[in-house]
Amino acid sequence: MSNSKIQDFFGKPLTIVNIGLGSMAQSVRDQGVPVLDVDWRPPTEGLPRLHTTQSGIDIDTANAEACRRIKSGRPVLVGMGIARDVIPGMHAHMILHAGPPITWERMCGPQRGAVIGALVYEGMAQDEAQAEKLAASGAIEFSPCHHHHSVGPMAGIISASMPVFILENKSFGNRAFATQNEGLGKVLRYGGLGPEVYTRLKWMETDLYPTLDRALQTLPDGIDLRSLIAQALHMGDECHNRNRAGTSLFLRAIGPALARTSRDGEILARVIEFIDRNDHFFLNLSMPAGKAMLEPAEGVDGSSIVTVMARNGTDFGIRLSSMPERWFTAPAGIVQGLYFPQFTEADANPDIGDSTITETAGYGGMAMAAAPAIVKFVGGSPQLATQTTLEMYEITFDEHEQFTIPALNFRGTPCGIDVRLVMETGILPQINTGIAHKNPGVGMVGAGILRAPEACFREAFDAFQRI
Amino acid sequence: MSNSKIQDFFGKPLTIVNIGLGSMAQSVRDQGVPVLDVDWRPPTEGLPRLHTTQSGIDIDTANAEACRRIKSGRPVLVGMGIARDVIPGMHAHMILHAGPPITWERMCGPQRGAVIGALVYEGMAQDEAQAEKLAASGAIEFSPCHHHHSVGPMAGIISASMPVFILENKSFGNRAFATQNEGLGKVLRYGGLGPEVYTRLKWMETDLYPTLDRALQTLPDGIDLRSLIAQALHMGDECHNRNRAGTSLFLRAIGPALARTSRDGEILARVIEFIDRNDHFFLNLSMPAGKAMLEPAEGVDGSSIVTVMARNGTDFGIRLSSMPERWFTAPAGIVQGLYFPQFTEADANPDIGDSTITETAGYGGMAMAAAPAIVKFVGGSPQLATQTTLEMYEITFDEHEQFTIPALNFRGTPCGIDVRLVMETGILPQINTGIAHKNPGVGMVGAGILRAPEACFREAFDAFQRI
Repeated sequence: MSNSKIQDFFGKPLTIVNIGLGSMAQSVRDQGVPVLDVDWRPPTEGLPRLHTTQSGIDIDTANAEACRRIKSGRPVLVGMGIARDVIPGMHAHMILHAGPPITWERMCGPQRGAVIGALVYEGMAQDEAQAEKLAASGAIEFSPCHHHHSVGPMAGIISASMPVFILENKSFGNRAFATQNEGLGKVLRYGGLGPEVYTRLKWMETDLYPTLDRALQTLPDGIDLRSLIAQALHMGDECHNRNRAGTSLFLRAIGPALARTSRDGEILARVIEFIDRNDHFFLNLSMPAGKAMLEPAEGVDGSSIVTVMARNGTDFGIRLSSMPERWFTAPAGIVQGLYFPQFTEADANPDIGDSTITETAGYGGMAMAAAPAIVKFVGGSPQLATQTTLEMYEITFDEHEQFTIPALNFRGTPCGIDVRLVMETGILPQINTGIAHKNPGVGMVGAGILRAPEACFREAFDAFQRI
Repeated sequence: MSNSKIQDFFGKPLTIVNIGLGSMAQSVRDQGVPVLDVDWRPPTEGLPRLHTTQSGIDIDTANAEACRRIKSGRPVLVGMGIARDVIPGMHAHMILHAGPPITWERMCGPQRGAVIGALVYEGMAQDEAQAEKLAASGAIEFSPCHHHHSVGPMAGIISASMPVFILENKSFGNRAFATQNEGLGKVLRYGGLGPEVYTRLKWMETDLYPTLDRALQTLPDGIDLRSLIAQALHMGDECHNRNRAGTSLFLRAIGPALARTSRDGEILARVIEFIDRNDHFFLNLSMPAGKAMLEPAEGVDGSSIVTVMARNGTDFGIRLSSMPERWFTAPAGIVQGLYFPQFTEADANPDIGDSTITETAGYGGMAMAAAPAIVKFVGGSPQLATQTTLEMYEITFDEHEQFTIPALNFRGTPCGIDVRLVMETGILPQINTGIAHKNPGVGMVGAGILRAPEACFREAFDAFQRI
């Protein structure tokens, strides 16, 4: 693609050196919307391609291996369980959260809200005030979902009693975990609090979970999520913020088993209604599917492939294949998006959630060309959705044979973000995401798009150059 | 769109005067595939736009009214019933068939096969030999589905005992009918015969139908098929030969009611499995939806809009809004397509079925730009699928506000084929379709694309010029 033809997502022409958060901000400014200034530096001019590590490893060879592992992964939903019983390292006083590690003191509003709500839901606090005290007391251990083979959308809170999906990557044997999706609006993962939030979470534990779990127990092969993602990409989903097809296909796949194992028609009807009314239900399967596919690519010596991108609403963090334990962080960005009627950008928390695992695995924002209708949810135009995917090929090392885009003549999705290419081109990964209110207790206020912050890629690249 | 850039569906460049069946044949010839010669004449050179009828009616005004009626239709699935009880004019010795009127003597192989199968299914014949004699005896009244507010895919056979969907166009009060879809392969509507065909049809009568019917009876508002079609067009369906999204959305819509009304979990499981395993299930809802939307546009004085396109495998017939009782026919064309492994074009019956009601209503081949992945089923490329839709705007009077195509920036689908525009441009309606074996008893052999034959449009236009 000719760089001179690249436009930003809202259709303004720009040159390659302007691409990134800076240009997004300018574009919005052009439309008369005030924006925060963001940290942006032009790409390193004339940066030569780094071919070998300091220790002499051929980086392309290492990246090919990392991408081979990602692409050959086959995540399957094999069962469900309660977090404390099935997630490694989980215990009654631990709360998992989205993004890189963070203390209660630095946590953003919606993540605090979700922690408070989880403590009330767990019965560890009688009310929200007591929960807030408990959270600040040091008695609760906070840990990133990513440290426990887990991912959580938005605040990404997983507490001990929550039911979780169990996925297995059949090609490598590793497992990944995520909660059931609550729906949109005033929900825990957006920091929403209140009786309806707790009641819903309780119903998900007492009715939704056992119903799905019983059905899954009768499916010896589980449900092949790689296949569902591949099909959904042919049905207008990008499997991050558009999951209408994925949710539909999941219901089709589990439907016969639900019918066979149902003990109560009314409960089953409510389970189907709950899923039918929440087109994001599949997000909490597409996310752990991405995690399951990416984990085997962690720890490839000399690889510059990004294996994690995650945000806690305060920091945006990435990890590289060759340095799988180390987080490189930068301040979380501001989302440019479409707001629900009574809200504006002034209400928005910075970018939050583990859902960027989808972009990391080669769908989500990488595959927007597959989902032209998503622009009704996150803004922009179908044409620019296509251009976004074309641009992402500039920073990915590979293309995913299993995940193809019909409109691009079945070309594989951009897969394997290469921190070298990000630094060489100055093109930052495209993310599309929901927007949480900045204060605890409110919930979702909109959805939109942004680029990953440049600083964490620069920091990762600096470190990578020294290995 | 510049005419000089138009390519045929297989990607060969051609000019506008070459478009149509003739060029399709040439394109296939170019690839070394022998094809039958087809009747093709270039469009009438310099044909002036016809503005008023002989009787002085303003044609654009009439067409605007016809299209207004089509576009404002809201087809809803309101229930089910047995053909003899609910289809007007139906009786025990009547068999409805796809396409324009035809005698047993002129019927093609697959339609004869389906008649034979229906007589065995009805118990009116002990075996296929006896059924063939009965069919030829004159004791059976054959009548087009279209004469009974009904539509049938491929052979389109509806016999008295078959369960049918009942649709109501809520904007106009008219009803339309269609059977339940059997799936692909060796099935009655493709002329397939044999015990598995009859067993399946019987199960559809004794298990599938009552299960769906009981569920529908609990939905006072029915299921809004206009909404499902509109959503499916945003999910990669064109609602003729790609119905994976529509089928999924239908299962979601009826799922809770199925759970509430189920009397037997195993039967319900088999019903969901049957629908899940047949991505064409929604075709038998998208077709009567088209019929329900088009019927109110029948009988607009002075309108040159096509309100019916249908094939019986021998003849292709059309009807115009201003002459709703009259069929204009031409020999059915040969489908260019993808064949199942053991079959070739030599096995193919000519174009057959009422499913062109979808193109007539503004989706199907008209909306191929919405369904780039359909080319895996019918052949061609995603880019040419888009060009096909762009070309169809040249022969339609209007665009459908309810049915939009995300990839074309949510432009409405081409709607309201205007016989004047077909004659002026020489562009014939694009159809995509299944392919039946030419002999009775075999079934489906592939799927593909073709253009409607020119002769019936010419004949209709000649007649229209005299009203």
